[in-house]
Amino acid sequence: MKRILNTETIKHLGEKVKVCGWVNTRRDHGGIVFIDLRDRSGILQTVCSPDLVESVKEEYVLEIEGIVQKRPVKMVKKDLATGEVELKAENVKVLAKVSSLPFDFLSKELSLKLPTLLDYRPLTIRNPEIKNIFKVGEEIVNSFRKTLQCLDFTEFQSPNIVPAVAEGGAEIFRIDYYNYNAYLAQSPQLYKQIMLGAFERVFTITHVYRAEPSVTTRHLSEYTSLDAEMAFIDSWHDLMDTCEIIVRNMFADLSGFGIAVPEICKGIPRLKMREAQRIIFERTGRDNRKESDLEPEDEQEICQWSKEKYGSELIFITHYPTKKRPFYTFADPEDPNYTLSFDLLCRGLEIVTGGQRINDYEKLVKNIEKWGNKADDFSFYLQAFKYGLPPEGGFAFGLERIVKQVLGLRNIREATPFPRDMERVDRRLFLAQKKKPAKKKKK
Amino acid sequence: MKRILNTETIKHLGEKVKVCGWVNTRRDHGGIVFIDLRDRSGILQTVCSPDLVESVKEEYVLEIEGIVQKRPVKMVKKDLATGEVELKAENVKVLAKVSSLPFDFLSKELSLKLPTLLDYRPLTIRNPEIKNIFKVGEEIVNSFRKTLQCLDFTEFQSPNIVPAVAEGGAEIFRIDYYNYNAYLAQSPQLYKQIMLGAFERVFTITHVYRAEPSVTTRHLSEYTSLDAEMAFIDSWHDLMDTCEIIVRNMFADLSGFGIAVPEICKGIPRLKMREAQRIIFERTGRDNRKESDLEPEDEQEICQWSKEKYGSELIFITHYPTKKRPFYTFADPEDPNYTLSFDLLCRGLEIVTGGQRINDYEKLVKNIEKWGNKADDFSFYLQAFKYGLPPEGGFAFGLERIVKQVLGLRNIREATPFPRDMERVDRRLFLAQKKKPAKKKKK
Repeated sequence: MKRILNTETIKHLGEKVKVCGWVNTRRDHGGIVFIDLRDRSGILQTVCSPDLVESVKEEYVLEIEGIVQKRPVKMVKKDLATGEVELKAENVKVLAKVSSLPFDFLSKELSLKLPTLLDYRPLTIRNPEIKNIFKVGEEIVNSFRKTLQCLDFTEFQSPNIVPAVAEGGAEIFRIDYYNYNAYLAQSPQLYKQIMLGAFERVFTITHVYRAEPSVTTRHLSEYTSLDAEMAFIDSWHDLMDTCEIIVRNMFADLSGFGIAVPEICKGIPRLKMREAQRIIFERTGRDNRKESDLEPEDEQEICQWSKEKYGSELIFITHYPTKKRPFYTFADPEDPNYTLSFDLLCRGLEIVTGGQRINDYEKLVKNIEKWGNKADDFSFYLQAFKYGLPPEGGFAFGLERIVKQVLGLRNIREATPFPRDMERVDRRLFLAQKKKPAKKKKK
Repeated sequence: MKRILNTETIKHLGEKVKVCGWVNTRRDHGGIVFIDLRDRSGILQTVCSPDLVESVKEEYVLEIEGIVQKRPVKMVKKDLATGEVELKAENVKVLAKVSSLPFDFLSKELSLKLPTLLDYRPLTIRNPEIKNIFKVGEEIVNSFRKTLQCLDFTEFQSPNIVPAVAEGGAEIFRIDYYNYNAYLAQSPQLYKQIMLGAFERVFTITHVYRAEPSVTTRHLSEYTSLDAEMAFIDSWHDLMDTCEIIVRNMFADLSGFGIAVPEICKGIPRLKMREAQRIIFERTGRDNRKESDLEPEDEQEICQWSKEKYGSELIFITHYPTKKRPFYTFADPEDPNYTLSFDLLCRGLEIVTGGQRINDYEKLVKNIEKWGNKADDFSFYLQAFKYGLPPEGGFAFGLERIVKQVLGLRNIREATPFPRDMERVDRRLFLAQKKKPAKKKKK
């Protein structure tokens, strides 16, 4: 007999069927045992005689054959897809046993204890609310891809092993690469730009790596970047327009998940960073008007302002200072101390960063040297420009940050099944490798 | 004026339009210059007066405004999408200049010189035939995803930074991970299995890493793995059945590319490895009947046999020896020296590997130790089984190998835009880092 899913039983009333799944709960009622079976589609109540399920405990994996029958009227559960039926078990086969569970992983308060949540990830991932987080993540990626495919972008595989530091800074992981040095990519930036020469519009969904020597609620050492780059732009506003299309589609595609997605007004506001700092100063008295970036509390404040003023929980902050952005960022012709770059903030957190890039070969070579690098180290990349590249720009969405913000998670580690940070790679490193932990930087 | 694509001009006969692209060729004919402009959609012939394009050379990036007109009858090119029209240029704007090209990268014989092809990748990727390789790769990934989504598989992001060696062997890259050791994933195997506990059917499209100290035409140090895993299988044949559905859909989805995709008969043949060795011995006299794996020439011979006997250029080879497979592989109950595992060969090369896995916790712990590992190092992973996992198995497709085989490329390095091997990460490492190259193993 072919297995059917739990939720398919409602179409087989009175018939004999086979279902499979995990024991969600077991309730003994005198001569009857109720086993709620959980599979990928949902929960099904089964009614078993005690001898069929003698040793069966929670999380046992079972295959049950039986007859689908109507539940007694007062036992109907309206909020359950299979709430009007139950399975009268005739045969129960144990597919896998469990000795004992460390805690009640189905409890709703589970997410309160982050280390437990992650130490026991292979178990806690089975909690339906937690499982849902990763379905949301999957949908966001699918939505990003679908929008860009509609806009005639080509997807490519960007390499993660790279020869040199692209984005600057010490926050890079070194790899023993045969007899050589190589590094984990901080971003697919240079490869996106190279690919433009053939495809004009490209995107890649890839993992990127940041050796952040700090533990915050919004950084991961390995995260998923949804990266796009487009050539023949008329202006850098084309980039923000494209971001906006992506975000709107994303939120629309999440409508089936019953999430309170962030509000957006018609046209996400675009505000210069210096202007944002002035507004924050006026609202809070906090004077960060000479800082070269927004602080986390600034990002929260300006999102609050945007929500109040425009009804948008998202806002583009533009014109970050040239010295704070990577060498390839296009300077504003009207004031070269600032760049044609932007961040998209959502509910107080940056979820996208992007901007126009320098596409002139000579300028780019000069900037590489100005930023303290050797042009020769970038000779492979520079070919893209030496042999002609149009005006272009791009952006990157941080997947786990979007998941965190749309679901209101407290920590970005909840937004990915297997978070990596300076303390954890699956297990806590200090416990697994019995070495001294590295010093944390304050951040 | 909004830019239109070259191939869209045929719908705008007699109208003024704007197009953008690269100078594919320039031909001077007395008082007229013909510029073939290349964009992502194709080639368009433009007719310019010499003063408009005085300094313009090949690969210059141009924006041209002009009138779409019919070509003179004897100038019509039937094999070109825009072959019946041309653009009479009125305005030409140079978007990017090029000093000189190192060689004719549009030449069809280009692929003969692999080092040149790769040293100049940012340029050679613009060659239409080469560009097409990556469109084929993109389509294969899309097709794999589409099939598995239809079969109710959930996609997830598998981490690339891992704490320990999963597949065994020394072929792993070490990372400086804060104060600790971490490694680049050889496969997403353990994470796929963990995810089954929540989703039953999962897949991931991820990069995997092999520190292969050898240079062959079929190995890369970083490659794209299309990985799937499914629980509640009735038999390991379910896995091969699913592979077959994926492959058939893939080849069907490639039909638009004008590729001679491999022939498959009804039901790809499934043959035990020992049986394959016997057949090869009978056909060639080459006696590898006691070897624990097939040699490359064996894989070619058995595919040839399959093609002759069954009209299938693909064949499943099954029952590889237990000692040659990873610790998690399910032994054949009928002969535990062999496993319920398989490779799918295509035109002489393995493109898929898979099999049933051990889902019993106690057995798995024993096997980990038997394979020379410590169970404690796998305690995170082992939770998936400790807390109950159904019978399951999975498989992995190697993207670049499929691309190589369907297109008949000579070297797998041609199948990915940015190949990594022991000699190259973008540039040749020996030249870039001025160190002694590592010793190659013969393979």
